[in-house]
Amino acid sequence: MDTKPLRVAIVGASGYTGAELVRLLADHPGVTLVALTGDRKAGQALGEVFPHLAQGAGGRFPDRLVSTDQVAWNDVDVAFLGLPHGAAQELCLGLPPSVRVIDLSPDFRFADPAVYTQWYGLPHKAPELQAQAVYGLTEFARDRLKDARIIACPGCYPTSIQLPLVPLLETRLIDPDDIVIDAKSGVSGAGRAAKEGSLFAEVAEGVHAYGVAQHRHAPEIEQGLSHAAGQALRVNFTPHLMPMNRGILSSIYVRMTRGTDADRLRATLAERYASEPFVRVLDAGAVPATRHVRGSNHCLISVFADRITGRAIVFSVIDNLVKGASGQAIQNMNVIAGLAETTGLSQRPLFP
Amino acid sequence: MDTKPLRVAIVGASGYTGAELVRLLADHPGVTLVALTGDRKAGQALGEVFPHLAQGAGGRFPDRLVSTDQVAWNDVDVAFLGLPHGAAQELCLGLPPSVRVIDLSPDFRFADPAVYTQWYGLPHKAPELQAQAVYGLTEFARDRLKDARIIACPGCYPTSIQLPLVPLLETRLIDPDDIVIDAKSGVSGAGRAAKEGSLFAEVAEGVHAYGVAQHRHAPEIEQGLSHAAGQALRVNFTPHLMPMNRGILSSIYVRMTRGTDADRLRATLAERYASEPFVRVLDAGAVPATRHVRGSNHCLISVFADRITGRAIVFSVIDNLVKGASGQAIQNMNVIAGLAETTGLSQRPLFP
Amino acid sequence: MDTKPLRVAIVGASGYTGAELVRLLADHPGVTLVALTGDRKAGQALGEVFPHLAQGAGGRFPDRLVSTDQVAWNDVDVAFLGLPHGAAQELCLGLPPSVRVIDLSPDFRFADPAVYTQWYGLPHKAPELQAQAVYGLTEFARDRLKDARIIACPGCYPTSIQLPLVPLLETRLIDPDDIVIDAKSGVSGAGRAAKEGSLFAEVAEGVHAYGVAQHRHAPEIEQGLSHAAGQALRVNFTPHLMPMNRGILSSIYVRMTRGTDADRLRATLAERYASEPFVRVLDAGAVPATRHVRGSNHCLISVFADRITGRAIVFSVIDNLVKGASGQAIQNMNVIAGLAETTGLSQRPLFP
Amino acid sequence: MDTKPLRVAIVGASGYTGAELVRLLADHPGVTLVALTGDRKAGQALGEVFPHLAQGAGGRFPDRLVSTDQVAWNDVDVAFLGLPHGAAQELCLGLPPSVRVIDLSPDFRFADPAVYTQWYGLPHKAPELQAQAVYGLTEFARDRLKDARIIACPGCYPTSIQLPLVPLLETRLIDPDDIVIDAKSGVSGAGRAAKEGSLFAEVAEGVHAYGVAQHRHAPEIEQGLSHAAGQALRVNFTPHLMPMNRGILSSIYVRMTRGTDADRLRATLAERYASEPFVRVLDAGAVPATRHVRGSNHCLISVFADRITGRAIVFSVIDNLVKGASGQAIQNMNVIAGLAETTGLSQRPLFP
Repeated sequence: MDTKPLRVAIVGASGYTGAELVRLLADHPGVTLVALTGDRKAGQALGEVFPHLAQGAGGRFPDRLVSTDQVAWNDVDVAFLGLPHGAAQELCLGLPPSVRVIDLSPDFRFADPAVYTQWYGLPHKAPELQAQAVYGLTEFARDRLKDARIIACPGCYPTSIQLPLVPLLETRLIDPDDIVIDAKSGVSGAGRAAKEGSLFAEVAEGVHAYGVAQHRHAPEIEQGLSHAAGQALRVNFTPHLMPMNRGILSSIYVRMTRGTDADRLRATLAERYASEPFVRVLDAGAVPATRHVRGSNHCLISVFADRITGRAIVFSVIDNLVKGASGQAIQNMNVIAGLAETTGLSQRPLFP
Repeated sequence: MDTKPLRVAIVGASGYTGAELVRLLADHPGVTLVALTGDRKAGQALGEVFPHLAQGAGGRFPDRLVSTDQVAWNDVDVAFLGLPHGAAQELCLGLPPSVRVIDLSPDFRFADPAVYTQWYGLPHKAPELQAQAVYGLTEFARDRLKDARIIACPGCYPTSIQLPLVPLLETRLIDPDDIVIDAKSGVSGAGRAAKEGSLFAEVAEGVHAYGVAQHRHAPEIEQGLSHAAGQALRVNFTPHLMPMNRGILSSIYVRMTRGTDADRLRATLAERYASEPFVRVLDAGAVPATRHVRGSNHCLISVFADRITGRAIVFSVIDNLVKGASGQAIQNMNVIAGLAETTGLSQRPLFP
Repeated sequence: MDTKPLRVAIVGASGYTGAELVRLLADHPGVTLVALTGDRKAGQALGEVFPHLAQGAGGRFPDRLVSTDQVAWNDVDVAFLGLPHGAAQELCLGLPPSVRVIDLSPDFRFADPAVYTQWYGLPHKAPELQAQAVYGLTEFARDRLKDARIIACPGCYPTSIQLPLVPLLETRLIDPDDIVIDAKSGVSGAGRAAKEGSLFAEVAEGVHAYGVAQHRHAPEIEQGLSHAAGQALRVNFTPHLMPMNRGILSSIYVRMTRGTDADRLRATLAERYASEPFVRVLDAGAVPATRHVRGSNHCLISVFADRITGRAIVFSVIDNLVKGASGQAIQNMNVIAGLAETTGLSQRPLFP
Repeated sequence: MDTKPLRVAIVGASGYTGAELVRLLADHPGVTLVALTGDRKAGQALGEVFPHLAQGAGGRFPDRLVSTDQVAWNDVDVAFLGLPHGAAQELCLGLPPSVRVIDLSPDFRFADPAVYTQWYGLPHKAPELQAQAVYGLTEFARDRLKDARIIACPGCYPTSIQLPLVPLLETRLIDPDDIVIDAKSGVSGAGRAAKEGSLFAEVAEGVHAYGVAQHRHAPEIEQGLSHAAGQALRVNFTPHLMPMNRGILSSIYVRMTRGTDADRLRATLAERYASEPFVRVLDAGAVPATRHVRGSNHCLISVFADRITGRAIVFSVIDNLVKGASGQAIQNMNVIAGLAETTGLSQRPLFP
């Protein structure tokens, strides 16, 4: 580990993923937080915007939010971007090349800018930068991350889905054309924007699907799984809004290729992730719950035989704000900084 | 409508389905509640056991629970049974034939007693009665219900699943061998028994699957769907425990038969249920939520095209304690009594 | 009961109290709903705005929202107003005198327009109408309601607080200068407006006070209690935002006057409310819960002796959207229409 | 800091406070966890009992629960006891004097064994040990803790109440005879025992008081406050069960002594806690929420002027399982071990 801490800026620190970056980075031994930006809340103390971050600050992060144009970029080594889609591309064009960017938005996730345009309705503003960007599903990207200028962190759902499925597709254990993903997410995934659909009274005591057959994470999932399968594929991806703050459970229904069974799927995943610090494959019969990973960077995976011969059920759980966003972003930062990947990410899950 | 009200006993009134029967029957214009039983709580006032039933009672139901052996069965026309599995078979053997039984347990749901034994681990104690029992998914059983001595009310999950799928299988619009059901239920479905897994702190702020590939509702679902399809079939049925009190959302993933599309599925269901008072098929694009039916006897169904060609997504929502249990039981009682099916069941959903 | 149904308009039907009025009035035997207004959502179907109201409509209310200026006021007997403060005063000035107004806003709650101005920051636009308005805490206002042109329905908190305290102050059983009210409300009390503070993630899994020492219901409570006490008084009123949809629990801490005890308080309240259909005083030792009145127009009250000699604890629970808003408004309508007060208000609480 | 880590046993590791001790101690740099006991679950892996503790264990704690009589007490420096009341007294009688005990039960909280007997209905089994026990409200007990053989950790409610009130009573700023405490607690405070009253469906979507005027924490609160006031006092203490997992909010209503105002109360508390790492007094106007301290050892306090002249409102929030139980217990261990009090307790709050 380099003795000089990384100088880190968090752009967009007034949202939930920004706050989570502060929570996790404030005590990271290899980091100095030099700037927190929030354009609409510039000038406010972070402790006003997020009172839970006010206590025990101990000078581990700047007190006040600034606007993005106030950042002294030449004194920044790494910038985490937690901006709405479209904004990161524009910002990156103006940053000095010495700043390494870890982007949590979808702006650099698609190898093909046309896919971005199709799903996000905007022309891609920085296709040259896109060509250099690395998709940061850490467990599958380490080697390419090391020298990346821009890291596109995966979306929360795509993280929870690619971790279990990529190894199964790479090893040809499941049929790429018959993947059904029923995903369930806590409300924090919708961000802190004041929208009727995110109100307590609209979410509590109930459940419903949303974005059916047209959620923007579908093409991202398909990009990753197609690559793993070595062929273009489409998935059923059906997200549901859950009356809970945090967590994603992806219940994935697959058809196995001939001669395979659920035990082999489980063994393959267990072997693939045996030395991974954050991914754990459960023993046969164990069911993962989102509350088992709340607040931590872990992903739990389990595999069950289906009652239908030849089919299997794969579950994965993550905390959408940690492994699904800010935690994985920091894991990627650790990679580019040559630190142990677990540095600053050893928080245990909070239960109940 | 007969001018003489039905004399009704509720056996097992100290559980959630029992309380729901009281809530709905107390103001039913064709019913007099003559006995509420609760063996372990016999002697207690119902208002102690369920304080929400204490107000405005207005003499519409007996004040106190009695034990089942205290019931004067010759003065009972209809008995609702809300007992643990195994108990209803035994009780029915001892009832006078003048009592018509509406059973909410699984005791009489399986045409083949061997299936009951296989899944519930008990010999069937009343196979002769089983032969006379009618499975009470009202919308598909009216004719047979009229003279039934024993009505086996469907389980909550099977109700939410058969209503959308039976017409699609009967019309051969979907492949019977590729049905994946991801179901989500509120905690009241687990009853009022004090179990660690039903504690607030074990359920709130999280989600997990349970009974994976071995839930007891699977054979019940398969019995009904096999009958509709005209062939034996197996389904993937994966229930999830939700941090909410009431409601079931079944998200059902199907493969369509050649030449069909989601619009045709929707139109078929809409036509099938056009004159049904409690089943409503939503317009294209509308997503049902459990909170849209909370407290009411309605089932909402919607159909979406999948992104995978040839596949469709079917959602259904019910209140597990109403259409999934006590409401449908009363709907069945209305049928056998020759009343309008909606009698006493016009409660509108409570939102938020 | 007049054989001709009342022609009723609901102004502001796109909020939670408006939806609750529709839920309760749609099946009211003495009412025809002739207009539902929602200026920003005019033209939309009510079932789009509130899908839970789409099922089983059966033609009991207009399908679509209209704007307020589209209402044919000469064909309206009663108008319920569910508007933001300030708007009702203005609207009333323009209504024909044949329309009787039941206002759910604070616009006509204060006998002294200066109090309104002080707390709501607006000049009172209709002081002459104010002079004719009757404060509609039904149990204490029946006689005056009968001929009222404008009824100002109490706020949700004031309802839950005045019902237990007015009789105790009128009978001089408690000290008017030592009243501490710790109130807890569900989030629906904040309405359907998209505000950060009402987001699921800001409310779930936690509790906090708000509006401390400056909530706008304080002067309304003090107006009512001062009148009951026959002297000006101030109360401590501290509302708390609860992670629940519905319900208000007011925990009220009082000092008794010399020679009194908790049993006498309880007996006094029980006697006062003995013939009231919606207010019930619990037996000694019983604790009311908001879930015992969810969805119903009931208020439950209980009284406990404090461990501090001479003090007592009074609890009351209501559903903030029913007895705290739309239910009480309908109760008032029943009074002015000469109907039984319980007409259309017999919904039993929904639990769990 | 001693270079040799403390050898720690957790007795009763199968409850929520036990699990929280494991969460916090597993990464404590001065501790080796040598034994985790759970008599009814002896032999089970901790990761089965609490799956959230399975990931990333990294050998930081024993894998399996043992029974208490299997512990090699001579190899234990500190024992945390998380047992039901009555059990700790008995166990302590049999422990070698080399084991220092940090008890989370009420067994050693009362200086007068007669008070224990009166409220817990049991004779005190170890009155000699009681005489040596120190009540561990850390901020007020440091000096006495250092050499204590047995530390009685305060209850969760008493912690949240004494922290704000003790300084105000010591400085005579508030009237000791007029203290009203309305406390709100998450359900985890009731433990993991399967009780009907702790079921999700009995707690969610509602609120109610419990233990009114007879909660066992009342005498503990009164003991501490009487000592601070220098006179015997009684308080109104009214706990409420909240639909949330964690957190206590105590809303405290006080009468100030002559010539004092809320600003002075706030300043006094701010000064008292200026150098405390875990207690923070908020600026005027700021309202603490339980979610601001979730998962952390912090206590936030705020003070407001009441609308009633001469009265003030004091709020405090803690996480009941951390500062209200396991966190404070570790803080006490740090004191007796001569470690910085914050060692192992720097977890930031988790929000949302």
